Amino acid sequence: MHQYLLFSPEVAAARAAGKPIVALESTIISHGMPYPQNVQMAREVEQLIRDGGAVPATIAIIGGKICIGLSEAQLELLGTSTDAIKVSRRDLPYVLSQNKLGATTVAATMICAELAGIQVFVTGGIGGVHRGAETSFDISADLQELAQTSVVVVCAGVKSILDIGLTLEYLETHGVPVISVGQRGFPAFFTRESGFNADFQLDTPAGQAAFIHTKWQLGLKGGIVVSNPVPAAEAMPKEEIDRITEQALGEAEQQGVSGKHVTPFLLSRIKALTGGRSLATNIALVKNNARCGAALAVAMQRT
Amino acid sequence: MHQYLLFSPEVAAARAAGKPIVALESTIISHGMPYPQNVQMAREVEQLIRDGGAVPATIAIIGGKICIGLSEAQLELLGTSTDAIKVSRRDLPYVLSQNKLGATTVAATMICAELAGIQVFVTGGIGGVHRGAETSFDISADLQELAQTSVVVVCAGVKSILDIGLTLEYLETHGVPVISVGQRGFPAFFTRESGFNADFQLDTPAGQAAFIHTKWQLGLKGGIVVSNPVPAAEAMPKEEIDRITEQALGEAEQQGVSGKHVTPFLLSRIKALTGGRSLATNIALVKNNARCGAALAVAMQRT
Amino acid sequence: MHQYLLFSPEVAAARAAGKPIVALESTIISHGMPYPQNVQMAREVEQLIRDGGAVPATIAIIGGKICIGLSEAQLELLGTSTDAIKVSRRDLPYVLSQNKLGATTVAATMICAELAGIQVFVTGGIGGVHRGAETSFDISADLQELAQTSVVVVCAGVKSILDIGLTLEYLETHGVPVISVGQRGFPAFFTRESGFNADFQLDTPAGQAAFIHTKWQLGLKGGIVVSNPVPAAEAMPKEEIDRITEQALGEAEQQGVSGKHVTPFLLSRIKALTGGRSLATNIALVKNNARCGAALAVAMQRT
Ligand SMILES: [Mn+2]
Ligand SMILES: [Mn+2]
Ligand SMILES: [Mn+2]
Repeated sequence: MHQYLLFSPEVAAARAAGKPIVALESTIISHGMPYPQNVQMAREVEQLIRDGGAVPATIAIIGGKICIGLSEAQLELLGTSTDAIKVSRRDLPYVLSQNKLGATTVAATMICAELAGIQVFVTGGIGGVHRGAETSFDISADLQELAQTSVVVVCAGVKSILDIGLTLEYLETHGVPVISVGQRGFPAFFTRESGFNADFQLDTPAGQAAFIHTKWQLGLKGGIVVSNPVPAAEAMPKEEIDRITEQALGEAEQQGVSGKHVTPFLLSRIKALTGGRSLATNIALVKNNARCGAALAVAMQRT
Repeated sequence: MHQYLLFSPEVAAARAAGKPIVALESTIISHGMPYPQNVQMAREVEQLIRDGGAVPATIAIIGGKICIGLSEAQLELLGTSTDAIKVSRRDLPYVLSQNKLGATTVAATMICAELAGIQVFVTGGIGGVHRGAETSFDISADLQELAQTSVVVVCAGVKSILDIGLTLEYLETHGVPVISVGQRGFPAFFTRESGFNADFQLDTPAGQAAFIHTKWQLGLKGGIVVSNPVPAAEAMPKEEIDRITEQALGEAEQQGVSGKHVTPFLLSRIKALTGGRSLATNIALVKNNARCGAALAVAMQRT
Repeated sequence: MHQYLLFSPEVAAARAAGKPIVALESTIISHGMPYPQNVQMAREVEQLIRDGGAVPATIAIIGGKICIGLSEAQLELLGTSTDAIKVSRRDLPYVLSQNKLGATTVAATMICAELAGIQVFVTGGIGGVHRGAETSFDISADLQELAQTSVVVVCAGVKSILDIGLTLEYLETHGVPVISVGQRGFPAFFTRESGFNADFQLDTPAGQAAFIHTKWQLGLKGGIVVSNPVPAAEAMPKEEIDRITEQALGEAEQQGVSGKHVTPFLLSRIKALTGGRSLATNIALVKNNARCGAALAVAMQRT
């Protein structure tokens, strides 16, 4: 077993018993939501995965180890820490060799899941091509990870603070398949529709699993995006989120917020401007993805 | 042997006998030319490869299998089908797992050829960076395939509806060598010259084969572009094709044609505006590439 | 041992004895500096590496072989030759199969070092995203090499004739870690500060070695940039180099210098406009990197 991997008792037992396992990221806990909603969300999502017949494995970097499955205390630590480092591909060796506390992004969670032999990973949304990337070259490392690391990422699409059209072009160029569930459209995180279509609509876990197995059996390395729209009852109205996003983008420009500071600024402004309703939607979509991911992990083990 | 591969009797015999094999794509049949010229072209190109001492292997996805070498009936099916899916890297698992009819693009044909152990692939032109990709990010998956999949692609360059200069920059960044045959210039599909040079002029099959063997012996994965200009007698006049391309680009913009619809629109307009002469040039250049590819496959086996 | 590799007696002995080895590139000799300063610099840099407890291995392509470690005569040949080819990834098979004299760039030296089992490589500066690459797509193949080839590149950052901000974005997207030594800022070759920060400051060879070992033990292929600022006493004043760079850029535009000709033009103009002081700074920073790289190679072998 890999020297950097440390499995929780629950995940170790699941591995020994050959049960389906679903990976979860930890940046959403440390950086994506306020305490205590973040830790509560994490626990509820883990339980939803158990209810779906799989075993949850939340991933974080603690004490020089890649922890696959976290204890209650570790979840609490991540949820309350103010110095957890957001870990992408380039940061993994730093956080491990310097013994720092690290919360894994989509890219780093994919890497750790692959190292741990976990094929399905549930998150809220993936990173993408930022608005203005034509000149800023600001493109999330998540996309290159999808191009090379063989893990399925179940998400609610891409936040509309990013450039969704350019994100889909980038994925196409790199041969990353984008599946949608229950509709043809590619979802936009807070809303069910982005105005763009996914590549393929595959509604059943069995159909998704057949696609994924075929890709990997062909030796085609890399991830698959399974985009699962937020339930209609919990989605935000598209006009509202569009208007608020435009407002937040304008404020960022006026206040000279740039580079790495833009995304956290926008997310925080969107949360404030929606009076907290964006947080409720965010929690709802992650839970919805947990159900989808658990069913997929079960189906993938059956086929 | 790979579970998804199905070899035709002719290709299976060639493999058993250790004969040189040349892969051919099928999108040119299903989407690139009208019936019956498409099927006739496909047969003639296969025969030219046999005449050159190699065995042709036209590739398509039929009945959940990657067919390496097609029967007469299968060529006819592809040539007349109205629902064959254009298959790139991301589409391969879909078409195979959903049992759809698939015509392989340059990217997917490279993947299938590599799986089948075929090193040389003949086509008309490769995809590239689209005009306007600075803002649209519309870059063909063929280029990333060239960066990673170890198959030689014999072509007549890149169509001038694409941005040839940006295509060559992209290939340079990704370390893909571009060889030209018989001239220093990189050809532009319908015409012999694009105004850009290839990286290396290598006129003999033996010289090309030595280059290719050296690349792969070094462990440098990825494709090689062998760009072979259309014979002068069958090339279109550069001014004419440039003027018509500009006209077609203008029409696309006026009529609001965008995204994936632009390339088929342009090709169809160019065909109409040239009174069908572009089709004759297209057929001529593919045949010319077949001769070049067969000679290269023979040379590669000798060295 | 690889059929294309030819080790000098000194390097062969170092390999047999298990001594730390540091790779050096040869484009800096053939294209980067005038004779005889280039050969003198090369010898002094090699000696600095020996003084630091490691063995230098200057790399070039001579007589159809990848020479790992050069004789006095070979250094002299490279330093005086007028037809040495600048070799990047795409050029390696050409220069080897056509038996040409080749000087290796950062990309090609990384490839050759990896083939030869050498983990640390010292150079002046790496290539990057060129100014205007938003529309020209002119991005050095060095960056894709860093994304995939597992060699540490010790450098003084990126020349300010390139777009340093876009270069760092590109590296981030591709998961390449950028370490700085002795300061937080990412250096700009002739000057100590670029206005951008590196990802991680790691001042000791042991800390750098722990980072690098961790990356590769995780199976994360690819290079690491160790950026080491030129010593303050030998740096050029930032205002001066900025002013001269702007002037040279303006001249290039006025004189219609474009494409591959821009970088050599700018470097030659900068040298002329600084009255040769840029050459002194260039030599100083390479020597400084040699000390850093030797210490790192020693530390990497200890851990
Ligand atoms: Mn970014
Ligand atoms: Mn496209
Ligand atoms: Mn360039």
